Amino acid sequence: MARTTITRLPAKASEDRSELDRLLDSVHIGHFALVAEDGHPVVLATAVARDGDRMLAHGSTGSGWIRRLAAGAPVSLAVTSVDALIVARSAFESSMRYRSAVIFGQCTSLTDAEDKLRALDTIVDALLPGRRAEVRRSTRKELAKTLVLALPITEWSLKVSDGWPDDPPEDCSGPAWAGVIPVQVRYRAPIPAPDLRAGIPVPESVRRIRDSSD
Amino acid sequence: MARTTITRLPAKASEDRSELDRLLDSVHIGHFALVAEDGHPVVLATAVARDGDRMLAHGSTGSGWIRRLAAGAPVSLAVTSVDALIVARSAFESSMRYRSAVIFGQCTSLTDAEDKLRALDTIVDALLPGRRAEVRRSTRKELAKTLVLALPITEWSLKVSDGWPDDPPEDCSGPAWAGVIPVQVRYRAPIPAPDLRAGIPVPESVRRIRDSSD
Repeated sequence: MARTTITRLPAKASEDRSELDRLLDSVHIGHFALVAEDGHPVVLATAVARDGDRMLAHGSTGSGWIRRLAAGAPVSLAVTSVDALIVARSAFESSMRYRSAVIFGQCTSLTDAEDKLRALDTIVDALLPGRRAEVRRSTRKELAKTLVLALPITEWSLKVSDGWPDDPPEDCSGPAWAGVIPVQVRYRAPIPAPDLRAGIPVPESVRRIRDSSD
Repeated sequence: MARTTITRLPAKASEDRSELDRLLDSVHIGHFALVAEDGHPVVLATAVARDGDRMLAHGSTGSGWIRRLAAGAPVSLAVTSVDALIVARSAFESSMRYRSAVIFGQCTSLTDAEDKLRALDTIVDALLPGRRAEVRRSTRKELAKTLVLALPITEWSLKVSDGWPDDPPEDCSGPAWAGVIPVQVRYRAPIPAPDLRAGIPVPESVRRIRDSSD
């Protein structure tokens, strides 16, 4: 079975790159699967951001798993969005609306300082749009402690479930309700840090992400 | 490096089983990592639910990956919650509040019909509390098409980041704002299925999950 072939319906496989990009641009947590030295599978949750035809992630030089990714271990990266509960008329047909992308390949570790800075800016701005312009860039010392990983978006699969309960006629004529409950990921009111100096206003980036969330 | 040893701070490692259970009881999407026949790592997003000292998942007998899990392939299962954006005064210190659990082991496939039914009830009720009492149980034919997987919660790690921006003094005395933006996963108003018969009210389970969400 080819890794990128979706072998099971009803969730439909999509080969639409723009649909993939919409998912990668809206979910900023990814799960990397890799194989440990002892042959066992390991999974690692981390922030991710799309930069054109590659996915970026970063981590500390002190993390063994990040170093293993940086060294080019084969990986799968999952980016998943749960969009709704599908409430069917039976347990069997109950499911979720979701979008599930998996990207296969090997990461490279960025080495050029300017490349690393640009990539970190991209990650910061993916998580909180506009923030890069509000904070200082990383110092040479900070950069030295940071591994920045890039995974090319070349081999990938996308599974999309966006339908309605698919109950058989005998259930549809029964007494049970059916429908969907949309799931929303939302930002709540920001909370200032306990050590924030007096008189510093909530910045534009934070106000915007909060306002876009209701 | 032992798989369950957290080797990097500042996210702190927790060995608190009740903290693990709180996470596993509030997030119902998991990512299974496994190794394919060709040696490459694969990652699979699926609904999960805790049942005492085991995690339950299910899937179609038509899915090759589910069959591989059911056959006892070594796995890692990640369950992750993003709780807030940590907005620091620099890109370097910007991060997330999160809880990240990984459970290691091998799944077994439930064989007894009554066990499978009870496990499916548990999954249905984890995703939508109270729903199991509102719908019919699976038929023998539906059960035959379903693999129900159980992964013991014995070998696990839990990483918790719940702090504030950890900026150095020179940034704290600067002009940048710092704080956190809480992230909430919320259910919106339910949408009836297009083929819902007239006169069937929104059930208690759906009303409750919606009301608990504001």
